[in-house]
Amino acid sequence: MSGQQTRQWVLANPPKADPVLDGPNATFSLTTTTLPKLGADEVLVKVLYLSNDPAQRGWIQDGMDPERLYTEPVVKGDVMRSYAVGEVVESNSEALKVGQLVTGSAGWTEYAVLNAKEVRAVQADEKSGIRPTHFVGALGGTGLTAYYGLVDIAEAKAEDVVVVSGAAGATGSMVVQIAKHIVGAKRVIGIAGGEKKCRWVESLGADVCVDYKAADFKEQLKKATDGFVDVYFDNVGGEILDLMLTRVKRFGRIAACGAVSTYNSFGEGGVKNWFEIIVNRITVKGFIVTDAIMSGKTGPMIQNIVQKIKEGKIKIGEDSETVVPTAFEDIPKTWTLLFSGGNTGKLVTQIK
Amino acid sequence: MSGQQTRQWVLANPPKADPVLDGPNATFSLTTTTLPKLGADEVLVKVLYLSNDPAQRGWIQDGMDPERLYTEPVVKGDVMRSYAVGEVVESNSEALKVGQLVTGSAGWTEYAVLNAKEVRAVQADEKSGIRPTHFVGALGGTGLTAYYGLVDIAEAKAEDVVVVSGAAGATGSMVVQIAKHIVGAKRVIGIAGGEKKCRWVESLGADVCVDYKAADFKEQLKKATDGFVDVYFDNVGGEILDLMLTRVKRFGRIAACGAVSTYNSFGEGGVKNWFEIIVNRITVKGFIVTDAIMSGKTGPMIQNIVQKIKEGKIKIGEDSETVVPTAFEDIPKTWTLLFSGGNTGKLVTQIK
Repeated sequence: MSGQQTRQWVLANPPKADPVLDGPNATFSLTTTTLPKLGADEVLVKVLYLSNDPAQRGWIQDGMDPERLYTEPVVKGDVMRSYAVGEVVESNSEALKVGQLVTGSAGWTEYAVLNAKEVRAVQADEKSGIRPTHFVGALGGTGLTAYYGLVDIAEAKAEDVVVVSGAAGATGSMVVQIAKHIVGAKRVIGIAGGEKKCRWVESLGADVCVDYKAADFKEQLKKATDGFVDVYFDNVGGEILDLMLTRVKRFGRIAACGAVSTYNSFGEGGVKNWFEIIVNRITVKGFIVTDAIMSGKTGPMIQNIVQKIKEGKIKIGEDSETVVPTAFEDIPKTWTLLFSGGNTGKLVTQIK
Repeated sequence: MSGQQTRQWVLANPPKADPVLDGPNATFSLTTTTLPKLGADEVLVKVLYLSNDPAQRGWIQDGMDPERLYTEPVVKGDVMRSYAVGEVVESNSEALKVGQLVTGSAGWTEYAVLNAKEVRAVQADEKSGIRPTHFVGALGGTGLTAYYGLVDIAEAKAEDVVVVSGAAGATGSMVVQIAKHIVGAKRVIGIAGGEKKCRWVESLGADVCVDYKAADFKEQLKKATDGFVDVYFDNVGGEILDLMLTRVKRFGRIAACGAVSTYNSFGEGGVKNWFEIIVNRITVKGFIVTDAIMSGKTGPMIQNIVQKIKEGKIKIGEDSETVVPTAFEDIPKTWTLLFSGGNTGKLVTQIK
């Protein structure tokens, strides 16, 4: 059997500013290629869903210092990198059968040849509401960010009081539920915007959720964090981070989450309460979910979450994803919806 | 033998703003008391030198939240707390003989009754230039701050490239020398203000010292930190911290030092490059030397430094202290020199 033919989107011109989709300076170009035949332990994967992530922009941008990028850049001529969910259509691996659903970094391609070690087998489960798309969202980077940040980075334990900002968001709502239903934290406090979101966060298991849009937010937060807190999972930065720096206990821990889309919010005023880190001997750890993925330790994390979903304890919010059916030639267009905003939860490309 | 009579300065009125030294709202008042007789394992110490520290102001200030203070506050009626060097003049302890020089938290008093466990025996050594006053300065809180911050908090090791700001200061110059002569760090980079200070820092063992007053400081710092750095010991905060956040390696460590006198410099603009902590997975740990002191593990730290002084490797700078001979009734006045500025190095009160 000869190699599989496939269309692919490759990086044609690393953009300096906004990506250009058409014309002579187009950022991406569509090509057709024939994949190599499968080697030992390799599988041919048909890509079904693509993950769209703000971080992808950093991977392709021109002029980024590669030493400061958190993963290798995508260089001119490379297939555009993307996490994906696909189906094994041909297998040279004992571990993966044809028809198996897998996740991995397949890229913007119809088909990909991947080593069995580079992919992870996953199971959808209609009865529990676990859809294939969830493995690039709530049960992909989002769930891993929440789990890795809370358990590995912040080292949250049962005796801890935990605060999570952006608690109604994709990552935050997972942090709340992992804190409550997996870590079993003593007390879980959410911060979210609006009465309705806060009540939803409480329905997920938060002991209380404080509305940052409320006129008396500061007083409410102070009351909710009376006695101070052990762990703060920061999804938002900015003023809420500054406030939380005054509410973390002596020797407390802050997980500074790689919420790339909010970077701009740090640049404006800066973090004013840095001295709290000193006086209260706070440990701040930045993290990026990529490290968890590269560590190869994510399987058990996702299994733990899936188990709690099956037990009816952890819920994936209805707003957790927006799936956009997309013709292969329109993949870049769907991706740019990330930057025009408006999508709710994880933006997933479903290849038509 | 009846108890020793002593004069003491006690906290009369916790100040809301600047301490008031005289008049009806005076912050401190001078009293005379008779100390209890020595109990088991207690010693009577004659106080010779007092340590003056910006942190003392936090201990006495009215309206401070005790849960956010890093040590117990001094309350109305208490003897003003202060580290001190004194001489044992009476002993009920096997371990401490009359005439022994000790350090401990004696307070603003002529004589103090202290448990042998609360004090630490120290030896001056004229030949090596180790004076009694050094045990509240370079070989007291200053040396411990440098050692504990660099070795315990930042976990600096021989394979590390280390940057120290405020490198010509009392703490910074110790950090440079401990990094070079005790840790044996691969490369030590100082940041200091002015050509002369920088050359002095290099004479202490820094591979290079960058002058932050130079017009091309940013370029020089970038060049000096080419390849990025593992450890940053931050003594100054502000803009230099912001710059260094861009020069710390992926998974690098920052020790945020309790340089109380510089807290104000954080409040103005805030820390702008917080996102570097995330993207480069930097760990920031705040620390206060008090934790080292309370841990009881400071003896070996100081012994290590003293040993290197005797070997001629670590030098205590001539500017490391300003000793002010002071009549007992003028102790508060000498203390306030801390806030009027101008003293070079550690401000030490020598009781006349």
